[in-house]
Amino acid sequence: MSASSDGSPSYARTPRTTPTRYKDRATWEQEAIHAVLDEAYICHLGFVADGAPVVLPTIYARVGSRLYIHGSTGSRPLRAATAEQGLPVCVTVTLVDALVLTKSAFNHSVNFRSVVAHGTAHQVTDPAELDVALAALVDHAVPGRSGEVRPANAKELAATAVIRLELDEVSAKTRADDAGDDPEDQDLPHWSGLIPVTTVHGAPVPYDEAVPLPAHLRRYPR
Amino acid sequence: MSASSDGSPSYARTPRTTPTRYKDRATWEQEAIHAVLDEAYICHLGFVADGAPVVLPTIYARVGSRLYIHGSTGSRPLRAATAEQGLPVCVTVTLVDALVLTKSAFNHSVNFRSVVAHGTAHQVTDPAELDVALAALVDHAVPGRSGEVRPANAKELAATAVIRLELDEVSAKTRADDAGDDPEDQDLPHWSGLIPVTTVHGAPVPYDEAVPLPAHLRRYPR
Repeated sequence: MSASSDGSPSYARTPRTTPTRYKDRATWEQEAIHAVLDEAYICHLGFVADGAPVVLPTIYARVGSRLYIHGSTGSRPLRAATAEQGLPVCVTVTLVDALVLTKSAFNHSVNFRSVVAHGTAHQVTDPAELDVALAALVDHAVPGRSGEVRPANAKELAATAVIRLELDEVSAKTRADDAGDDPEDQDLPHWSGLIPVTTVHGAPVPYDEAVPLPAHLRRYPR
Repeated sequence: MSASSDGSPSYARTPRTTPTRYKDRATWEQEAIHAVLDEAYICHLGFVADGAPVVLPTIYARVGSRLYIHGSTGSRPLRAATAEQGLPVCVTVTLVDALVLTKSAFNHSVNFRSVVAHGTAHQVTDPAELDVALAALVDHAVPGRSGEVRPANAKELAATAVIRLELDEVSAKTRADDAGDDPEDQDLPHWSGLIPVTTVHGAPVPYDEAVPLPAHLRRYPR
């Protein structure tokens, strides 16, 4: 952990979190990184199995400078993370904000915010930490949810596995450019502009009509 | 390529595209796999660099049984994919359809559709194939777009790199379950149900007000 040039807390830069291109899109500031991690709730978990890359989507939650990533006992990454040496992983989270359509094919792009975290993941084995991690996983997409459900019983806990990744070697990248077309393209007759992209959470659809919608779900649709 | 039990064309199963859990969620059918690949347009590209996994978001397009994945000359995966032996990759595409909120914490889930493709990627070097790939990349998110823009010039083409992955070892997974709560939880007082999740593409925002909206963009907002 270190401080950036303006004094706000930042994660330390390393060679693999320092881009070779579009350097101005990268940041190591905690606030920017945590904001992306807290808005999204699906990550893509990368690991190496038999020498080859594997990328799987799963849910995660952030608690301070830790990521908790959901798995199940028996899944490949989880078995590897139980070993003492842990599992080298890359966890990537991506939010898409707009399609960028320019007058030239070449300048077409996507406005996005992403976080890439490198490190070694370990399975959470301490019962108290597992409680915190599971509550965080349930609350991440739907704040307040974990207090309004039946907690896991012993059999369910035994079938659940969570891995922990300390945020340490991590950066965010943002492309939020709306600068438009290159000067030499501006007089071309083609349409150019942005198509905004948003993720919409609809009105809750109940399984059990007899239960009224609780307060923690009244934020939907959003 | 092979045929599934109902005769529809399928990709061949391999050990790493055969799940150890939730086997009924997996399919190798081309139609289901291609539908996911054609609806999404962001993939997470996994590769191994210096022995460690790296996962980066990027855009892609499908042409038949090939994926074209966008990069730029100079980026790490692209440099590796120029080598004759290519770059072992895992390309994962994920669509989220709903948050699944159950009366038990344990059964909380996400309805999703995902595709995971394993293989060795190679850089596209043939100029005719590169033309096809770049048009597919521009048209994927916005059909019809490539015919309505200035094509790339020689300098731009030299700065663009695309890698090709033959779809061969690939599967899709779908969770579309709305079965709800376990029987033993059904009388609990907690709310349970689905929160639908959709990706919305808004009305186009022009850079250049003088150009009217062309036909290929009149599908937005959607």
